[in-house]
Amino acid sequence: MSTTPRDLIEGRPVLIVIDIQGGEPPSGESAIPFMPGYAEAMERVPALVRAAREGGVPVIFFQEAHRRDLVDFGRELDGAEGVHLLEGDPGTELATNLGVRADDYVIRKRRYSCFFGTELEILLKGLRADTLFLVGGHTDVCVHYTFVDAHQHDYFCRVIEDCVAGSSLEAHDAALQAMEYLQAGARREAEEVIDAFGAYSGGGA
Amino acid sequence: MSTTPRDLIEGRPVLIVIDIQGGEPPSGESAIPFMPGYAEAMERVPALVRAAREGGVPVIFFQEAHRRDLVDFGRELDGAEGVHLLEGDPGTELATNLGVRADDYVIRKRRYSCFFGTELEILLKGLRADTLFLVGGHTDVCVHYTFVDAHQHDYFCRVIEDCVAGSSLEAHDAALQAMEYLQAGARREAEEVIDAFGAYSGGGA
Amino acid sequence: MSTTPRDLIEGRPVLIVIDIQGGEPPSGESAIPFMPGYAEAMERVPALVRAAREGGVPVIFFQEAHRRDLVDFGRELDGAEGVHLLEGDPGTELATNLGVRADDYVIRKRRYSCFFGTELEILLKGLRADTLFLVGGHTDVCVHYTFVDAHQHDYFCRVIEDCVAGSSLEAHDAALQAMEYLQAGARREAEEVIDAFGAYSGGGA
Amino acid sequence: MSTTPRDLIEGRPVLIVIDIQGGEPPSGESAIPFMPGYAEAMERVPALVRAAREGGVPVIFFQEAHRRDLVDFGRELDGAEGVHLLEGDPGTELATNLGVRADDYVIRKRRYSCFFGTELEILLKGLRADTLFLVGGHTDVCVHYTFVDAHQHDYFCRVIEDCVAGSSLEAHDAALQAMEYLQAGARREAEEVIDAFGAYSGGGA
Repeated sequence: MSTTPRDLIEGRPVLIVIDIQGGEPPSGESAIPFMPGYAEAMERVPALVRAAREGGVPVIFFQEAHRRDLVDFGRELDGAEGVHLLEGDPGTELATNLGVRADDYVIRKRRYSCFFGTELEILLKGLRADTLFLVGGHTDVCVHYTFVDAHQHDYFCRVIEDCVAGSSLEAHDAALQAMEYLQAGARREAEEVIDAFGAYSGGGA
Repeated sequence: MSTTPRDLIEGRPVLIVIDIQGGEPPSGESAIPFMPGYAEAMERVPALVRAAREGGVPVIFFQEAHRRDLVDFGRELDGAEGVHLLEGDPGTELATNLGVRADDYVIRKRRYSCFFGTELEILLKGLRADTLFLVGGHTDVCVHYTFVDAHQHDYFCRVIEDCVAGSSLEAHDAALQAMEYLQAGARREAEEVIDAFGAYSGGGA
Repeated sequence: MSTTPRDLIEGRPVLIVIDIQGGEPPSGESAIPFMPGYAEAMERVPALVRAAREGGVPVIFFQEAHRRDLVDFGRELDGAEGVHLLEGDPGTELATNLGVRADDYVIRKRRYSCFFGTELEILLKGLRADTLFLVGGHTDVCVHYTFVDAHQHDYFCRVIEDCVAGSSLEAHDAALQAMEYLQAGARREAEEVIDAFGAYSGGGA
Repeated sequence: MSTTPRDLIEGRPVLIVIDIQGGEPPSGESAIPFMPGYAEAMERVPALVRAAREGGVPVIFFQEAHRRDLVDFGRELDGAEGVHLLEGDPGTELATNLGVRADDYVIRKRRYSCFFGTELEILLKGLRADTLFLVGGHTDVCVHYTFVDAHQHDYFCRVIEDCVAGSSLEAHDAALQAMEYLQAGARREAEEVIDAFGAYSGGGA
């Protein structure tokens, strides 16, 4: 492992907030499994969003949503998840405590990876992004698979491990280890990232 | 989980053999970590390839390879893997015991997912493939991330768990569970798949 | 040219309505050039949309739109077009005479091709589409380049030549010829397509 | 049109040589149509390749090739082209006068656009490319559609108009105009590009 040590922020950072929807912790009859502590992890995200805004770090909010005629579920109902996140359902809306503004970058997606069938690469090129910070859920599904695609697209990737949560504790832990396997130092904590955003020069040049 | 139970083979099957290269078990100074039992798992693959050929199931062999000037490693050297699988190195060649023929489908790839930057979707559409059977390595890297992309592209996906191996036993197990999360019944064993290939009508119509 | 003659509709048809926005013919100070007869061509589209609906042919409406901070224009301002189609501008809305309904398939795009950075492939796979009918504008830009991507993705492609218009007559004609080069019989007229949609069994099976 | 005038070379240049195969001018029974002057245009390319090498400009050679079982033609036989460029046929090899070396970047493709189902984006990111210079054929097919994808991927694009040729003179001219529509100043001549490659600092930093 002759890995060059990397900075927390290489080049230009972007914060990507993945599928924090519904405004409240998931309830019992959910179509999707959630690990203990899920809601607490999500509640740490708004402070991070504020720090990003203050530091001039662009924020992109993702929202998984499916058309009500179920045309775009693909194979997503062949596994552990039932019908979920239909357009127009209240639980599909982005969580209100994220403080999303009218002119924010919000991208709707149909699949797990934020890169799959979306404009993300267009937007990241426009922002000349280098390092992506991932928060939201599930650690082991949308976060992990977005990380993988970002990695394969040559971005420096960081997952803020106290701001993500998974379908189970075991799956959450395994996904964090898989991300660390791909990029050493990928696992970070909210506190150090908030500090780094505060010290960031704001993408000026 | 209102999942419709799926057949082992839905529609037309294809066998995808991922990164079985070098012709021998990995030795000590490898740039890539391997779990115990890696070589044994890979040695079960040739029988599966023969069963596929006899049953008229198309086989696609993938070979990870990087240009010798290192231009295409992207972020792959930022993690647990060192420089690996350079074009022209003997260890980069497909394992000889796979019995690859001159007119076989062989695809070279630069990234982990077999879909990323390759002709795979073109070939699968040409074959009118529906169900993909994955074997090879690593369970937790190339196999897992190929499974995820195949899933997102709407293919039925099966991983033959005694014909895949990972960077560690823990990572191997976690990846198998992640794949089963995506598609119930994804985890299969070589014996039942060999039987199913034998009973397959050969993709005639 | 040993081309197999193809039916007007091969398999399942889908109508794709490209960038008919603004509700009125373009005015003088437009950021984009338009050929004579542009408005007339667009006015023929609503009848086609109605015929598709009556025949059970899915309709997908595309809307080119750019974020107001200009982040996603890429190289689009390096050529013949100025800043155009900003989100929130009245002229960016889909033309009201198209009769778009709340549950219709509407896809926003940032680039010329309807496939680039969008969910179109996901939706077309969900619809099990085989033949795409293209209308809208510009013949020589968004229509042409959508046709090319659809062709490369193995769809049967038809352009309804009296329901498309270009940046100039010459560019319109050249693009139609280029599409016919790719698929013999690609150029069709609204009347025959309306008849064919009427006779279509409705995608039942 | 408030277009910023662009330099001939913006940032880092790359030369892309598209489908110059077969080593000789096309003969009468070709499966693909060629315009008059096709061979002469292709004969101007080797000098450009030499100038690129001398100036430290990376060169990427593309080779269209199809598998002999015809599995990957997609819809390419539905139009003006018959079965063409099969793997293993002498005419499928890159033209010998290009002077391709063992360690050159050579990419095989199955479709018209050099971006479609290939590793091109991986390689261009690795090279940190900004401006792409296109030569080869056909102007109105592989060159045009590669230009369009490069444009949509945010590259500065130049087509060297005396080093490309099309399926007909009309189609060649129309494609050049379409490319100029996308990026003002896209059309260039070999002589000025050879001079610019000579003056290029070699991509040092």
